[in-house]
Amino acid sequence: MGEAQVPVVAQLAHVELLTPKPVESLWFFTEVLGMTEVAREGQSVYLRAYEDWYLYTLKLTEAPDAGLGHVAWRVSAPELLQAGAEEIERRGLGLGWSEGELGQGASFRFQMPDGHRMELVWELEYYQAPEEQRSPLKNRPQRRPLRGVPVRRLDHVNCFVSQVEPHEAFLREALGFKLRETKIGGDRQKVGSWLSVSPMVHEIAVMRDGTGQGNRLHHVAYWHGYPQHLYDVAELCMDWGVRIEAGPGKHGTTQAFFLYLFEPGGNRVELFGDAGYLIFDPDWKTVVWDVANESDLYHSTIWIGAPTMPESFYTYGTPERVPVVK
Amino acid sequence: MGEAQVPVVAQLAHVELLTPKPVESLWFFTEVLGMTEVAREGQSVYLRAYEDWYLYTLKLTEAPDAGLGHVAWRVSAPELLQAGAEEIERRGLGLGWSEGELGQGASFRFQMPDGHRMELVWELEYYQAPEEQRSPLKNRPQRRPLRGVPVRRLDHVNCFVSQVEPHEAFLREALGFKLRETKIGGDRQKVGSWLSVSPMVHEIAVMRDGTGQGNRLHHVAYWHGYPQHLYDVAELCMDWGVRIEAGPGKHGTTQAFFLYLFEPGGNRVELFGDAGYLIFDPDWKTVVWDVANESDLYHSTIWIGAPTMPESFYTYGTPERVPVVK
Amino acid sequence: MGEAQVPVVAQLAHVELLTPKPVESLWFFTEVLGMTEVAREGQSVYLRAYEDWYLYTLKLTEAPDAGLGHVAWRVSAPELLQAGAEEIERRGLGLGWSEGELGQGASFRFQMPDGHRMELVWELEYYQAPEEQRSPLKNRPQRRPLRGVPVRRLDHVNCFVSQVEPHEAFLREALGFKLRETKIGGDRQKVGSWLSVSPMVHEIAVMRDGTGQGNRLHHVAYWHGYPQHLYDVAELCMDWGVRIEAGPGKHGTTQAFFLYLFEPGGNRVELFGDAGYLIFDPDWKTVVWDVANESDLYHSTIWIGAPTMPESFYTYGTPERVPVVK
Amino acid sequence: MGEAQVPVVAQLAHVELLTPKPVESLWFFTEVLGMTEVAREGQSVYLRAYEDWYLYTLKLTEAPDAGLGHVAWRVSAPELLQAGAEEIERRGLGLGWSEGELGQGASFRFQMPDGHRMELVWELEYYQAPEEQRSPLKNRPQRRPLRGVPVRRLDHVNCFVSQVEPHEAFLREALGFKLRETKIGGDRQKVGSWLSVSPMVHEIAVMRDGTGQGNRLHHVAYWHGYPQHLYDVAELCMDWGVRIEAGPGKHGTTQAFFLYLFEPGGNRVELFGDAGYLIFDPDWKTVVWDVANESDLYHSTIWIGAPTMPESFYTYGTPERVPVVK
Repeated sequence: MGEAQVPVVAQLAHVELLTPKPVESLWFFTEVLGMTEVAREGQSVYLRAYEDWYLYTLKLTEAPDAGLGHVAWRVSAPELLQAGAEEIERRGLGLGWSEGELGQGASFRFQMPDGHRMELVWELEYYQAPEEQRSPLKNRPQRRPLRGVPVRRLDHVNCFVSQVEPHEAFLREALGFKLRETKIGGDRQKVGSWLSVSPMVHEIAVMRDGTGQGNRLHHVAYWHGYPQHLYDVAELCMDWGVRIEAGPGKHGTTQAFFLYLFEPGGNRVELFGDAGYLIFDPDWKTVVWDVANESDLYHSTIWIGAPTMPESFYTYGTPERVPVVK
Repeated sequence: MGEAQVPVVAQLAHVELLTPKPVESLWFFTEVLGMTEVAREGQSVYLRAYEDWYLYTLKLTEAPDAGLGHVAWRVSAPELLQAGAEEIERRGLGLGWSEGELGQGASFRFQMPDGHRMELVWELEYYQAPEEQRSPLKNRPQRRPLRGVPVRRLDHVNCFVSQVEPHEAFLREALGFKLRETKIGGDRQKVGSWLSVSPMVHEIAVMRDGTGQGNRLHHVAYWHGYPQHLYDVAELCMDWGVRIEAGPGKHGTTQAFFLYLFEPGGNRVELFGDAGYLIFDPDWKTVVWDVANESDLYHSTIWIGAPTMPESFYTYGTPERVPVVK
Repeated sequence: MGEAQVPVVAQLAHVELLTPKPVESLWFFTEVLGMTEVAREGQSVYLRAYEDWYLYTLKLTEAPDAGLGHVAWRVSAPELLQAGAEEIERRGLGLGWSEGELGQGASFRFQMPDGHRMELVWELEYYQAPEEQRSPLKNRPQRRPLRGVPVRRLDHVNCFVSQVEPHEAFLREALGFKLRETKIGGDRQKVGSWLSVSPMVHEIAVMRDGTGQGNRLHHVAYWHGYPQHLYDVAELCMDWGVRIEAGPGKHGTTQAFFLYLFEPGGNRVELFGDAGYLIFDPDWKTVVWDVANESDLYHSTIWIGAPTMPESFYTYGTPERVPVVK
Repeated sequence: MGEAQVPVVAQLAHVELLTPKPVESLWFFTEVLGMTEVAREGQSVYLRAYEDWYLYTLKLTEAPDAGLGHVAWRVSAPELLQAGAEEIERRGLGLGWSEGELGQGASFRFQMPDGHRMELVWELEYYQAPEEQRSPLKNRPQRRPLRGVPVRRLDHVNCFVSQVEPHEAFLREALGFKLRETKIGGDRQKVGSWLSVSPMVHEIAVMRDGTGQGNRLHHVAYWHGYPQHLYDVAELCMDWGVRIEAGPGKHGTTQAFFLYLFEPGGNRVELFGDAGYLIFDPDWKTVVWDVANESDLYHSTIWIGAPTMPESFYTYGTPERVPVVK
């Protein structure tokens, strides 16, 4: 059944990353990924990719440990902000309204079941390029930078969770995400789900944390769109000492052409080098991969590239240890 | 304002092309573009790209002249089929219901203001690959073909119209398309509009027919997704005698990486070699290009590649002459 | 010191592969790699890549076991054929003159120290494309094929040897190869050497056979020249059941962008997706990688891609077992 | 007949460009093409691509008019320096010996028949990267730069000449170049010749100057080796105001994937995005394109891309006007 209802969430607006090495992290995002600094406030630097339309998509904040600060979602229409907030409150996950954050209007803060911090927002400031940064290409908000291998836009976020099912349910029921692909583990519990509100296979994925902790960041992904650029970034990483975890390669799940690396602060960053495949079918049947099936086990994670992902892919997230809250 | 309403149309389902050279056209689509024949009926052959999910996306029909048979749109939800039909009827453009077309349920036929034939449909048959065509990649409905440079999916259609404005209005008001980009000519009338119901910049464009005729096909586009593949197709065209009109190059409008060629029957086909840019902003402000502005004039059509498009791009469509209906 | 002397060998002319599965091997080379069959004789089929200038570069011969039939080298000038033969005879490795092989004049047969069969030849038949295969591109001997992801030309051969040093010496002293790169193992013996008579880093490599047998084929390599094509071949292999061993990835040694797979007969085939780097310096200092140095160990084999090559890369060659000759 | 003689010239060592806008030219070569400054002396800045092995390959010298300062060729062996000088002297084109140029030993200066300045040299200083520029990749003399779309090495030079034939003869007879491709004009005189001493189709081309002046630079070419990089450079040029003349596209002659632009000083620069095709045949028959043949006329210049090159390609060179010498 196609859904004649607009999802609460329209798109991923920005992500806040925590880093214990703010200088080195900033070097990486600006010099290797060619992002542009647009503001500093307190312990945070605000950065944008050159085809992001809003003021920024990455807030980089100094902190004792690496990890996810929060994720901001733009709602599909102004009236959905209140509606979404109420729906979340009903589930007991609301954290209240916030005002005055740089580049945005009122936002409703909440957490996912595990505790990942998020917010819903409607009003976002559009980036106005200064004269010397204006592109003659009117659908490009800023000239392509001359530094690094510049990323074009924020793509998605991937959260390590203690259990996939409740997170998947929350994202579907409260925020309007559709389940595009899912992966069943040997214990018949889900090991990962990929969800979206657009034809992309995911704006968010939730994967089971191999350490059992949950409430951690697996990775944030920026989009290049061209396969060669992942090789170019990989060359820079090799030559300049940034640690690559895996890739370039092509996932079976999502068909994404990926590169995973660790920014100097320790957070995993994915770079996305094509468009994977896009889903336009309004009546999409979730693609289910079952690890009990050998072909699925083998092909879902990697379709092209190294035969397997390194162990760290299943156990490393940020922060490395989640503080116990009593 | 974001729209809290689901558009009537969800996606482009298939296109029917008319060809006076059915054997040669079929050779081109199967041997050069690697499409798969799934059925023949009467004077028609039904073809699919290997990542199309429905049974077919191209119906190739023998006819005295090249041109567009019809365009089929899948609606966003079953209840929108009737609703859409009524909305179209109100505008006097309905042509009635149809049953029994291969691979689909009931469809509502209509025409655009100029006369381009279209239909709305909900029920579509999914392709079930025979055993020897099944891919281990579960989000791929068919193995990648061994012939030609295989296209992955149907992307969009571009109609030559006598006047852009009424077509744009019809697509927005009756079918739910959003206006993503538009181009104003020297006479202050629009020369082209690009519209979509998804983050893609267009599933349909309407461009002013330089001959004034309208009611013609400008082109149908299939998607490769990788820049190299446009060069590969161009190599095959040069070596095997298929006429290329323009490209590979990159449009300013839509940022599409394009190749235009003429299939042997005379219809223009575009191949699309990247993802252009995608629009996730629920409150998108139409990008307006104004040919009175020299930079816009220069950059909208071609951002990278030859300095201009050939004259034929503005005057050639199929059929070459539209029969006068009295 | 630059060498003011022309090397005996000018280029790799063709390779003969033995296969216990001639039908399946032929399918692979023609349907996946897009090679063209030009002749059959006895148990052999002769094949060419579409930018090979000679009649063929691959002789595929049915045999009980996979392996290398022989390697043919074209000499740099007619007078060097006799001179080369004499030099080889002096080393006791000559096997005598041969006449009447398809597509070539007199050749001098010999073996490398381990026993790999080779020949020197001057006269080679150029491919004359039939009318329907002629390209309008005058520096292309044949139209680009419509099948598979067509390889452009034969690139190099890699032999598994019992000891690198005597083979390297033979290639340099008798045939005029220059040592471009070499790799020292933990026991201070060489584990591999890459040699060429042209700016390419190698037309031949000799690598130490991990099983100690030697006299085996490690792989033969064809050239695509474009990175995307390795992904295209990999896609076909995954979808059609051809086993990939490693890649796409980039070697440190030679900087080659590689894909390794096993053709159905069991021989390893490498596809080469860029130009690596080229050596024009007439006074080149061999690049020496020392596995006692951790950075060298890590970076020489793989610069970009999976962290390591699979074990099979060091121990699998064809035939799997070399028959003991008494 | 293969040639059992080593050519005098082994490779293109460096090129000196004259620029009336030294600051802007330097910005272009360092910020857009990612070259590294290694020295300044007088009015000259010395630059290198990151995979050039010698200290520099571009000497950028301030001058009233754009144009070619000189071209340096490394000889194949030390003893060929004197031999080459004598051969050139015999033709009355010698300009004497020079010592003390940065990064090189004794060189013999000469001119081509039209007056283009050149030199032969054997001793060249190798680049020794400072610690912070050292790559772990031992066949890469310097880390890949973080600026622009970095070029990998100097590729070739193209000279505008008053008559092709005497220049071709000089290059072949005095310097040992082989004629790889040539193009015959409507008047039966040559309009261009492509010559090399290596498997590349050319290290130098001579093309007939459409203005009749000759003694001018057509372009100097740097090598990227990856098609995507030409698009990346073109993006930067469009966004940052560097004028592109033509491309990306693929020449028929040489099969080079090209991009032509004008550096801010006015000199045409070509960027080379693949390896074209390579010639290993020791008995190569020159590819002859005849403009009286329509297919040759059409296909030699552009195989893929815009239908024709702009008029400027045939008439613009640097300097725009050659000073009359009495």
